[in-house]
Parts: sequence; C-alpha cells; structure tokens
Amino acid sequence: MNSFGRLFRVTLFGESHGPGVGVSIDGVLPGIALTEADFLPDLERRKGGLQKGTTPRKEDDYPLLKSGVFNGHTTGAPLTVFFENNNVRSADYEKQRAIPRPGHADWVAHYKYGGFEDYRGSGHFSARLTVGIVAAGVVAKKILQGITINALLTEVGGEADIEKGLQKAIDAKDSVGGLISCRVEGLPAGLGEPFWDSVESLIAHAMFAIPAVKGVEFGAGFRAAVMMGSEHNDALEDNSGKTRTNHAGGIVGGIANGNPLVFRIAIKPTASTPKMQQSLNWETGAQEAFSVKGRHDLCVALRAPVIVEAMTALVLADLLLISRSLCPV
Amino acid sequence: MNSFGRLFRVTLFGESHGPGVGVSIDGVLPGIALTEADFLPDLERRKGGLQKGTTPRKEDDYPLLKSGVFNGHTTGAPLTVFFENNNVRSADYEKQRAIPRPGHADWVAHYKYGGFEDYRGSGHFSARLTVGIVAAGVVAKKILQGITINALLTEVGGEADIEKGLQKAIDAKDSVGGLISCRVEGLPAGLGEPFWDSVESLIAHAMFAIPAVKGVEFGAGFRAAVMMGSEHNDALEDNSGKTRTNHAGGIVGGIANGNPLVFRIAIKPTASTPKMQQSLNWETGAQEAFSVKGRHDLCVALRAPVIVEAMTALVLADLLLISRSLCPV
Amino acid sequence: MNSFGRLFRVTLFGESHGPGVGVSIDGVLPGIALTEADFLPDLERRKGGLQKGTTPRKEDDYPLLKSGVFNGHTTGAPLTVFFENNNVRSADYEKQRAIPRPGHADWVAHYKYGGFEDYRGSGHFSARLTVGIVAAGVVAKKILQGITINALLTEVGGEADIEKGLQKAIDAKDSVGGLISCRVEGLPAGLGEPFWDSVESLIAHAMFAIPAVKGVEFGAGFRAAVMMGSEHNDALEDNSGKTRTNHAGGIVGGIANGNPLVFRIAIKPTASTPKMQQSLNWETGAQEAFSVKGRHDLCVALRAPVIVEAMTALVLADLLLISRSLCPV
Amino acid sequence: MNSFGRLFRVTLFGESHGPGVGVSIDGVLPGIALTEADFLPDLERRKGGLQKGTTPRKEDDYPLLKSGVFNGHTTGAPLTVFFENNNVRSADYEKQRAIPRPGHADWVAHYKYGGFEDYRGSGHFSARLTVGIVAAGVVAKKILQGITINALLTEVGGEADIEKGLQKAIDAKDSVGGLISCRVEGLPAGLGEPFWDSVESLIAHAMFAIPAVKGVEFGAGFRAAVMMGSEHNDALEDNSGKTRTNHAGGIVGGIANGNPLVFRIAIKPTASTPKMQQSLNWETGAQEAFSVKGRHDLCVALRAPVIVEAMTALVLADLLLISRSLCPV
Repeated sequence: MNSFGRLFRVTLFGESHGPGVGVSIDGVLPGIALTEADFLPDLERRKGGLQKGTTPRKEDDYPLLKSGVFNGHTTGAPLTVFFENNNVRSADYEKQRAIPRPGHADWVAHYKYGGFEDYRGSGHFSARLTVGIVAAGVVAKKILQGITINALLTEVGGEADIEKGLQKAIDAKDSVGGLISCRVEGLPAGLGEPFWDSVESLIAHAMFAIPAVKGVEFGAGFRAAVMMGSEHNDALEDNSGKTRTNHAGGIVGGIANGNPLVFRIAIKPTASTPKMQQSLNWETGAQEAFSVKGRHDLCVALRAPVIVEAMTALVLADLLLISRSLCPV
Repeated sequence: MNSFGRLFRVTLFGESHGPGVGVSIDGVLPGIALTEADFLPDLERRKGGLQKGTTPRKEDDYPLLKSGVFNGHTTGAPLTVFFENNNVRSADYEKQRAIPRPGHADWVAHYKYGGFEDYRGSGHFSARLTVGIVAAGVVAKKILQGITINALLTEVGGEADIEKGLQKAIDAKDSVGGLISCRVEGLPAGLGEPFWDSVESLIAHAMFAIPAVKGVEFGAGFRAAVMMGSEHNDALEDNSGKTRTNHAGGIVGGIANGNPLVFRIAIKPTASTPKMQQSLNWETGAQEAFSVKGRHDLCVALRAPVIVEAMTALVLADLLLISRSLCPV
Repeated sequence: MNSFGRLFRVTLFGESHGPGVGVSIDGVLPGIALTEADFLPDLERRKGGLQKGTTPRKEDDYPLLKSGVFNGHTTGAPLTVFFENNNVRSADYEKQRAIPRPGHADWVAHYKYGGFEDYRGSGHFSARLTVGIVAAGVVAKKILQGITINALLTEVGGEADIEKGLQKAIDAKDSVGGLISCRVEGLPAGLGEPFWDSVESLIAHAMFAIPAVKGVEFGAGFRAAVMMGSEHNDALEDNSGKTRTNHAGGIVGGIANGNPLVFRIAIKPTASTPKMQQSLNWETGAQEAFSVKGRHDLCVALRAPVIVEAMTALVLADLLLISRSLCPV
Repeated sequence: MNSFGRLFRVTLFGESHGPGVGVSIDGVLPGIALTEADFLPDLERRKGGLQKGTTPRKEDDYPLLKSGVFNGHTTGAPLTVFFENNNVRSADYEKQRAIPRPGHADWVAHYKYGGFEDYRGSGHFSARLTVGIVAAGVVAKKILQGITINALLTEVGGEADIEKGLQKAIDAKDSVGGLISCRVEGLPAGLGEPFWDSVESLIAHAMFAIPAVKGVEFGAGFRAAVMMGSEHNDALEDNSGKTRTNHAGGIVGGIANGNPLVFRIAIKPTASTPKMQQSLNWETGAQEAFSVKGRHDLCVALRAPVIVEAMTALVLADLLLISRSLCPV
C-alpha cells in the first residue's frame, strides 16, 4: 500500500501540513557515495515558485538523512530521507472543510477514512509527497550507472510552445495540463518479466502513482492501434537487439530489448483552478459557488518531469537488481 | 514475477506447446458456487477460430479444476485451473528458430534466458497464457457482486466499424490493432490507495500485463492534457459522490469515487502478420526475408475484451477484499 | 498465503483426496539440467509404506512437469510440478465427518471455511501437500551449488535409538513424535538481513509451515538461556569468519557467518493415534468415543527430514539469489 | 527486507548512533484514538537503566509522531514514529573498530556490507531498533480489542527466581540469558493460514527478528517430541473450540483454535559480557584479548517481554485484518 518495489523498495509517508514528509528506501546497495548535496539538483527541479505557473509556496525541501548513510556512503541499511514542513498555512483549508474541492481527493478521502483524514492541504494525498519520490529517484539513479533517463515537458495546454500554453491559462485565469515524454538510453536488454512484471506494467504502475497522471503509452502507443503489423513491427538489425525503428518503445513481450525505452504520459490540468466553481457543501447538502484557497500551481505538469524520471529510476533500479539474481546459470 | 495481487492473488504458469497452461488463485473466499461450466462462457469469448480475423487453432480450452473446489463450491484453499494443450503443431516453430519474428518476444526471450527458453509458439510468452487470466477473472467476477464490468472493442485498424477494419487487414494481407473501452458500474467508493496502489496504478499494471497493450488512459485520458481545469473538474452532485461529469473516469486521488470506472486501452497490431518481413538470422548474422508460420489472429484485439474484463475483475476483487479490512474503526 | 519467498518463490496447491497436489515455483534460473528422474530420490525418502511406522498409503508420487522445463533444462519460466492422487479412499473420512479428530485441523478448518472445506483426508491441510515442498526443494538444491543440507532424525519418542522409540509406540498402540537436526555446510557468509529477514526468521517461518513442527532452535538454542555470555560467545579464528565454537548455529545478527548453519526442530506425535480417544460430535454436541480411521504414520517425524531439507533449501536459494543483487557496489 | 506484514505492515529504519530510529506502519485503521502519551508505558517497560542488569544508557525514547495522526486519531495514512538519538557516546566504538566483538554482528556486518556499515553501537543491528517495534506494537494492540497479550520473563540464567539469576551474573562478572513465556487470551478462532502463513510461522518469524532470540516453541513445544499422541492431542470440549488441555498452544493446522495462544522463547546471554574475551584483529590477523566497551545490559532478556508482546501484536493485528477479508461468503 505505501510501498513499491521488490528489492529496491520505497516506502512513502507524511502529510502536507503535518511535521513533514519522508521516504524510506530498502535494497540500497552499500558503498554508494551520497551526501545531502546530491539530492539538491533534482529537488530544485521539482520545487515550486521558480517560474510562472508554479505555486508560491516555497519549502526549503532540505533532505534530512535519517538513516542508511554513514561517512558519505550508503551503508546497505534502510535509507530514510525526511523533509520538514516549515511553510504551512493550514487556515486556508480549515475554512472550507465541508466543501470538497472539485477534482481533488477531498471527498473520497473523507468517505474512505470516515472523516479522520488530515484534510489540511490534501493531507497524505498532497503532491508534497512527491518530494520523497524525487529523493528516492536520486538514489536509484546512482544505481543505474550508464543509464540516462530524460523526461521532458513537450506540451502544455495543447501547445508545444510551453510558454504559450501557460499564458493561455494565465489569460483564462484557469489551470492547464500537459504531456511529458520520457526516454531512457543505455538500458540493458533483458530487464522485466513476462506478464505481471512487464516493464510496461511496472512503469505504468509507478506513473499512475503520480498525482494527476491520466494516461500512459509506450512507443507508438495509441497510434499503434491504427497501424498495420508490417508497419509497427521493429526489424532487428543485429545481435545487440538494435531495431531499425522503435515503435515498441524498447519493450517486447514485457522485456527491455536493448533499444531506448520511450513512453509518454498525460497530466490533467491542476485541480486547483483559480476559477469560480460549483461544489457540494456536505453538511448542508447545498451546491455552493466555490473558489480554491491556498497556493497552487497553474500547471502541475511543469514540476512533473523530475518526478517522472524518479519513478522511472525506481522501477529500473529494482529490475536491474532482480536481473543480477535471475540470470542464466 | 508470475504472481499478482495482495489478497486475491493470481499465479500464472505454462507454455504454448508444453503440457498446458494454468492458474492458481489465492484468497478465494470459501462458499462460492462454482463448477467448470461457469468458466465456459468467458472462455468461449476468448477462443479463436470463431470469427474472421482469429486464429484457426482451436483448443478445447476445457478448465480442469485441480484444487480449491469441492462439492460445487470454493473451499477457501488455493484454486487451480489447468488447461491441457491438445492441439499443438510445434514443427512450424522449429524451422525458423534462428530468425526471431519481428514484434515478438523471440529475441528478448533468447537473450534473457540464455537460449534455454521454450521457443515453440512463443513458449511462456504466448497469449495462450491468457486463458488462465480469463479463468481467474471468472472467479473474481463472482466476488464482485453487484458490480458489472463491460469491455468493448470500439475500433479496429482505425475504424469504428469493426468489420470494415478487419476487411482492411484482410485486403492488405496484414494485421491490425484496435481500441478497447472498459466501463465498470456499481463500484463502491473508497477502493484504492493513495500513491502506489491507486486504482489507476493497479488497473494499468494489469492491463500492460496483457500482451500487445501499448497504451492505457482513464476518463478523459490524453484529452485531459488539453483541457482547462474548470472544464476537467467533475462537480459533486450529492453525498453519494456522484459527479455531474466523469472526466476523472471514476478515480480521484487514486481512489474510486463512486462513479463508473472508465478506461481505454490501445492494442497494437498482431505481430504475426502474413506479410513478408525482414529479420535477422542470429546464427548467420544475415538479414533474411521472413514470413511468419503458425496459426495466428489478424487482430488480437478481437479476443481481448474478455481478457480486459478479467484483469479488471482481478484488481477490483483484490481491492474489495482489502477494503473490508481497512475500513474505519 | 499459499506462496513463500521473495525471488525464489513457491506456491502450493491441492488437496489430499482431490485430483492432486502441486507446486509452482517462480525465480528458477534458466539452464539448470532437470528431468523428472531428478525428483525421485527425495520423493522416495518422503514416501510412506517403507518402514515400520509409516502409512500404508502408497502414492506413486510421480512428478509431472507441467511447465518451466524444456529439453531437459529449466527455462526461467515458472516451473510447475503436479502429483496426481491415485490411491484415495475417501469413504473412511465421510463416516466421521461430524467428529473432529483430536489434534487435527478438522475443527478449525470447518470453522474457518464455514463448512466448505474439503474434509477428505484433511483436504488442503494434509501432509500430502509436502510432496510439492520436496519437489521445490529438489530444484532449490540445484541452485545451492557447493552447499550441503543434511537433516537427521535424532530421536523418536524420547529415544536416540530410533527403532526402540518406534517399538515403544507400536507396543503402546499409540503414536510418537521426534527430534530432527539439520546442518548446512558450505553456506557463504552474508546471507540474511537484519531483523525481519534474519536467517533464523526465514528458516523458522518455513519450518513451522511443516505440519506437526512445534519447536525450532538454532545453535545452542534453549540451552543458550542457561549459559553465560563468555561461554556462549563464539570467538573468531580468522578472517574467513570461522569461529572456535558454534553456539550461534552459524547466524549472528540474523546473518550467516560462514560457519555451519545448525538447527533443531521438535515434531509432535502423529495426531492420528490408533488409540481410542474422546471427541465432540458437533452435530449432537455430545462427547463420543472415537477411533481414527484412514491410513496414517505412527510417527510423522520419520518422513520429515527430507521435508526439513527441502524447506531449508527454499529459504537458502532465495537468500542466495537476493545476495547476488544486494552486494556492495 | 526491512518490512513485515501483509496489510498491517511495519517498516523499520535507523541506527544506534545516527540521527535516530523509527518505524513507519501501513494498514493502520483510521479513527483509532492515539497520542504520544499512549506509547509511553510500553516504551518505559523497554527502557534500560531502571533495574540491576540493564544498561545505564538512558534515551528519552520520546515518540515523535511524524505522520498518520491528526487531531488525536489515526488517519488511515502511514503512521510514522521517530525517536531521536540524544545520548550517544560513539567514541567507545571507534577505538576497537578492527576487533569484532564476539557474539555480535560486527564481523558479518563488515563482511556483508563491504566495510560501509555504520559500526557505531552496532549501527542498524542495534537493539535500539526495537524501540520502533515497541511503538508499532502499541498501535497493533489498539486494533486487537478484547485480546490480551502477556509476556513474562520466567527464568534468568537458569533460575526461576529472577533476582537470583541476575545476581549470579553480577557475581560472575558475566552476562546471562533467559526464558520468556507469552500467552494471548481472547484470540478468535480461525486466524492464520495453512502452511506458509501458519500462526506459528508468522509468530516465529517475528520472534527470531528480535536480537538474541535463539529458540521458539509453541504449546508443549520440545516436550511434544517425547509425548504419545493420545497424551498430546487436545480433546474438544464444545463447539466454541475449547479444548480440555492445550498442548497445541492454541494452534492446530497453523490456525488459531480459540484457545489461548501460548509460546516460549529462549534468549541468549548478552553478547557484551564484561569478561575479558579473545577476538581477532582483522587488520593484524592476530588474536587479541578484548574487553567490551560501551554501556550494556547484563541480561537483555529483562527488556524483552514488551518486545515479544509487540511482535505478537503485529502478527495478530495483520492476521485479524486479513480474516475480515477472507471470511466465508
């Protein structure tokens, strides 16, 4: 439930307005050089407040290493990173407690947890939790020597010119979504398992764990559904597994085939739009006009690439470790 | 690796041209009325040879109940269903052993398993394994009382008129893919977990375990990326969780919100196209003209809806069982 | 629930008087030479009817390889072994359905599964299921190159002279238990994890999954509780990890230390004693005099050593695979 | 690896002389009243420095609730408790780095983690980690309404008079072990699963995860091996499952039978004896006379009962949650 992975295993915890959020990682190889500074570049990429369209909330996002690191190296014991919440304005949320924000988890959380959920700033459902995912990704990337993962925002609000897409949202006083492409180079062939633990299954599992992701496709993806077999099939070039085209996105039969892993994800527009909306007041049963309080991104997709990379890294680090064990005798 | 699910847990095994394929299911509640006949309708839906575009291989697909059923009811012990392979023509595959079929798992299987893979008819990678998934789905559906799951083929080869899409492939002597829509009604709100075990994560995990699936989207899916927040957000109508629109596809914050669960998947064209293709001969290193032998579907998407339903049922049965445990005190 | 292991993962199914019992094993390395004949020696050791004190029921116990083996080698796909039940006399059990046999799982199975359990010959609770464990052990032992596992019956009915212990039971027309010692040589140091996955935790977990095991101790075991620290501590001899004594039984801090792994288990007397006993008739609520029907061992401990070895092999194969992944960078 | 449990799942992390130790718990039902004060009684029981034979190191052991609690109740989100290390004297350990302490994990940790282990105060292997186990136990006990768990120290250094056993150690300037009995009343029948997840398997798994435990037995335990079947079998008294005797210790066929769950564990003497010992200097290869520095218990068994209770509670809470799901239809 709050953990993911078989050997490289990530456990998330925390709430948006509680003491902080964190991650504990199991299966970290001993001897990896690692300091707090190593986390900062990716954490910086995830941070809000730096470009138009991101939230003015600025957490320090400083990674406190609580376990698993000693003398600047991983020890092999569980590695825990904690981020304190220092910049919290819960009062924004208290006021509108009985009015679930459209597009947010407020209503389902209230229903599922019987009213005991921490509702401040989406509580445990907050995208604040992704800071722990990014931290885990930093560790995973260190295991993936020679493998590069690059996620790029390719479209915002339907525009390939991202600035233009954002401006559209600003002009409309609304929020927008976007598309992200991820490409992994240097991935060894053979990772993944047939059926349940196909590379696609695990990557998609991780991607849909990112708040706001609503679609995932590999290689030609949805376009594959309109291609002919002779057009879609990737012809092998040589014994390294290299193919002439890469419609498969680097995965056949669930297994990495040595070509770049390529996939694309759709991010819905930020649920917290500045627009006036209608919602239900669950105490009165009445519909009410409603405007979201709090500090939010116009486009969460802006901050998502580094999270997509981190998630990809978690999955691949796990598969890489497993492949060391389950190789032919 | 060959298992999926937390409480309702499905283990697959078998090969296309070995003794048979099977499934063992854990977490089956005792007392469910179940006979071999209950499996036949869904198995029939999955079967080839019945309409144009499906393989002429006709297995009896008769479900042999090897464990977990007694006196016409489930016992609570692991339930195993086995399907014998009676209609096997392995010689077709022996001949072209050194030439991996484009779009198939031949090369990755050979690489991953060091040449020890059972290559006949794709071995363990064969879609024949999905007969076990369908069987598990039959059991899962029995647990999902009052919940209906319907998967429909909505497009073949880019055509909403399915017959027309198939004819296109027949005319071109090629294979085609398709789109499948799945809709679940009656799903209780509250299923799923934030982050790792979001309903989307688990459904997508299962969908990408189906051979040939290359894309999955929920609700508005990829279209969400071009919507504005105020347009995408689903406004709550009443305390039952019902929303005016359902762009979220029934899931918010990873949790079922009481509205229909709606998702769509893309199926690539059958890798085994009748067209002449090029591939590598891994013994000689030469490129060779190549035509797929064996009996195959022109469009695997035709047989996929019942598999999609089964996979959906496995995930939801598991989540339903978990929700019985983890409800508020 | 019916599976055990992280990478080398064993799934059991079947009932005593159903179609058969089986095991499906995940995480089997490809390329291991394996035929049905390889299973026979260990299966023979487990078999009843060969010496005084074992059940006259003689199953052929022939291992049918249903998946995962091709051309005399493992393929890397899930390996399934099935054993048909050919020698079944269920009528013995039908008669006394309402009278749970003392010491057996009859009452708890009835209670837990709401009366839907397969009660014939203990159903899924039968020691017949251990044939699948032994089969899995055969595969595991092949992975454990250079590691030898020997389990010995050291005491029956309190007698180190096993024949004498058995005769005691025969004379008393009663059943007896016994003690088994297991010793593993050649185990590399470093296997196991601190806390949850200590070698002791995993071995004990597996041992207590064997029906009739009621105690497990490692090294000095219960005797350790009366030793002084200076007496119990094993002094290191050299950098290989070898210690002068081995009171720890080869495990310190949950981790194998390179010395022989040594443990001992207690097996209770066979619940099915020929003696007249009292039990409850759950239909009438009356106490009834009761004599066990069916064919049973006077001392199940006689057949247990090969099961103990198999269980040990499963755990160690899993730990060995994991250790290949989680070694220092 | 650092997690245990299926639904109620406990993740441990931390080191003896790092920033602190902690536990993150998944599967905590929402709505349980819980404050930091609730943890103090059990934490107090575990604490050293209070009676003769326990270590003079006094941590505040104050439980910092980092996630999962809001307004004095559990929220249903992962619950994390952190304990800062405030009272650390690492220099004691630095001095004797190259001389692994006999009976400790120093050598295996060094070997397993390639020299990257945090060696100060046993690092991640320290019994300090059990503070997190006790905290998790406090939460688990709240789920186990109407079930009482009592663990008692019944013997120290071979003496039923505990004071006398301790005095023996003090007089000998050595350390001693002990025996602990645990008894659970009010446990509903039906918990546990046949084979892998038998109650005995899970309890033993958890017990052997406690540092220094070297033996576990249920009911008659090792004595069962010398009993006759007619003597050992517990006769059913009535339809509630109550038996006349309880040699089975409340478990038959791996399933709780409604009688008290009874088991006993052996704790080895504290590895850190004040006595002069011999060990290897792994830098010089020479044997050296060696005396343990640092602050330690003469008898770790004194602090163990509350840890045994906690571990028992974790296992039973998990089984109780599972039983809510997997009950007959």
